[in-house]
Amino acid sequence: MYGAGDVRVITVPDPQLLDTTDAIVRITRGCVCGSDLHPYHSMHNDENGVSMGHEFIGVIEQVGSTVATLAVGDFVIAPFAWSDGTCEFCREGLQTSCVHGGFWNAAGVGGGQAEAVRVPLADGTLVKVPGTVDESQYASLLTLSDVYGTGWHAAHRAGITGGETVTVIGDGAVGLLAVLSAKQLGAERIILMGRHEARTNLGITFGATDIVAERGDEGIQKVIDLTGGSGSHVVLEAVGHMPAYEQAVGIVRPGGVISRVGVPQYESAPVGFGSLFGKNVTLTGGPAPVRAYIEQLLPAVLDGTVNPGLVFDQTVDLEDTARGYAEMDARTALKVMVKP
Amino acid sequence: MYGAGDVRVITVPDPQLLDTTDAIVRITRGCVCGSDLHPYHSMHNDENGVSMGHEFIGVIEQVGSTVATLAVGDFVIAPFAWSDGTCEFCREGLQTSCVHGGFWNAAGVGGGQAEAVRVPLADGTLVKVPGTVDESQYASLLTLSDVYGTGWHAAHRAGITGGETVTVIGDGAVGLLAVLSAKQLGAERIILMGRHEARTNLGITFGATDIVAERGDEGIQKVIDLTGGSGSHVVLEAVGHMPAYEQAVGIVRPGGVISRVGVPQYESAPVGFGSLFGKNVTLTGGPAPVRAYIEQLLPAVLDGTVNPGLVFDQTVDLEDTARGYAEMDARTALKVMVKP
Repeated sequence: MYGAGDVRVITVPDPQLLDTTDAIVRITRGCVCGSDLHPYHSMHNDENGVSMGHEFIGVIEQVGSTVATLAVGDFVIAPFAWSDGTCEFCREGLQTSCVHGGFWNAAGVGGGQAEAVRVPLADGTLVKVPGTVDESQYASLLTLSDVYGTGWHAAHRAGITGGETVTVIGDGAVGLLAVLSAKQLGAERIILMGRHEARTNLGITFGATDIVAERGDEGIQKVIDLTGGSGSHVVLEAVGHMPAYEQAVGIVRPGGVISRVGVPQYESAPVGFGSLFGKNVTLTGGPAPVRAYIEQLLPAVLDGTVNPGLVFDQTVDLEDTARGYAEMDARTALKVMVKP
Repeated sequence: MYGAGDVRVITVPDPQLLDTTDAIVRITRGCVCGSDLHPYHSMHNDENGVSMGHEFIGVIEQVGSTVATLAVGDFVIAPFAWSDGTCEFCREGLQTSCVHGGFWNAAGVGGGQAEAVRVPLADGTLVKVPGTVDESQYASLLTLSDVYGTGWHAAHRAGITGGETVTVIGDGAVGLLAVLSAKQLGAERIILMGRHEARTNLGITFGATDIVAERGDEGIQKVIDLTGGSGSHVVLEAVGHMPAYEQAVGIVRPGGVISRVGVPQYESAPVGFGSLFGKNVTLTGGPAPVRAYIEQLLPAVLDGTVNPGLVFDQTVDLEDTARGYAEMDARTALKVMVKP
């Protein structure tokens, strides 16, 4: 990406092993993330450009000399952050805070909208998919790189244990997979706030019981009415803009939880007596340590119990990546897979 | 209270039963709360004045015709909010959000810095102390009205289960009893941030393992150093001012919890990527539903296992209540008991 709206596919040198813990992965599928649209809207022009993409599945092509758990030919899923798998945070399942880890497209590491990529700390970062992988499984496996694990993180951090009313704000891929996750964790009622009908219909497929298309005060009142005046035990906020936060505060039940996975496009927000404190509301969430969830979520993906890959409604060839951004930006695509 | 710094003891009509669910309690001991100092500093002059005090223990003097669980002569503890004990929130232990409840000194209900008070919804609100109560127990029993239950709420909401490093911000009565509560819940290390030596010494008695007297960036660095660079799993914020919040954000460990019980003197605060979100920090807390905790905390108070009443370092007669405020304001008293 060279600036707002300026996505180019160029030829770069092949990635090389730099550390003995690296692996080179030949990418099978990458994709465009809703969060990629933030720089697509606002990036300043940069003649050097930045590589893009933080979600991919692929096949190991080379491994460094100390890589112990992976071999050439393994089919792997890459989480959106790389991590050593051994530090105190990784051991606690918070790989996004790994003391040796980092994020794609920074510090000399490339991205997932590409043909191949160097993966640092490959043993800690990559998860091998057992058995033979069929192309029909690519979409769902790819969601484990980010959007499914992120939706799961929202629901998991909110402490859903069964029987709750859960409201999901946002009908993007993460919001829809937060619906699926809440359903898997036993939520009794799942209210999805979104107004793009094709998406909210997919939300119903994933387990939503009610759709609220209204926003702002009108949307808040609708959820309050739907919950008998008390509000929603759990609110999963998968947007990141201030109106979504305000909506969450408006609909959460006293003693309830707001779990955020939409990257906040604000720094300060109401948290005092009139918003969170007076109602004993808990605010949680953050960048999802999806690495912690891949093994747990993989079996139901492989056996077809769940089909999170339904969030991909378009596929473009790598050279058409710019069109993938444009369609997601125009909301004519929900989520675009990129095929190298 | 008739305005900032203007506390008067006046004669008013005796409280009367108004509803069949009321009780009249003859107050044995009341006290002054740190939160009473907020109006003591900033209240606008009001020629009608407002009654004060939301913590008391006493003896039932009259009961309404439908009061079922209490009788004249019972020794009772009153939580700082009154509640029906039967609504959906009370049943979940969130009596501060009771749909029929309320707070002392409002809506025709008096306060605890008095000789007697009408208690609405007496069955739901009051907790009878079993057996004979000795005067030596008054102080500890009185902490169950607010400060002990509030410190407990901070620690309980933070999810302390044992083994954690817990940092308590604030060496007032609530902060000190948050130390005691964290200790009871199994915290391994308890860092108390405060600089009033008599108070921090009491904190050590309650279980603090480290004292940090520094504030601001210096205090943050000290806690980071004490925790091997990672920060504190749990931060219990018992002050309510913005610098305390900022301190909490600065010292909390990635993936950790900030639990607030100091009433926020701000509405907006940093919660975005650079403060809470990026580190997956959970923010929780609120007005403590102390009613939910009284029965649980009472046995260890009655058998002397814990002595939370040590936070009371002065007692004044009711007519000297103004002096109690002045001493707490000057920090020459930690917490002042009021004897009618």
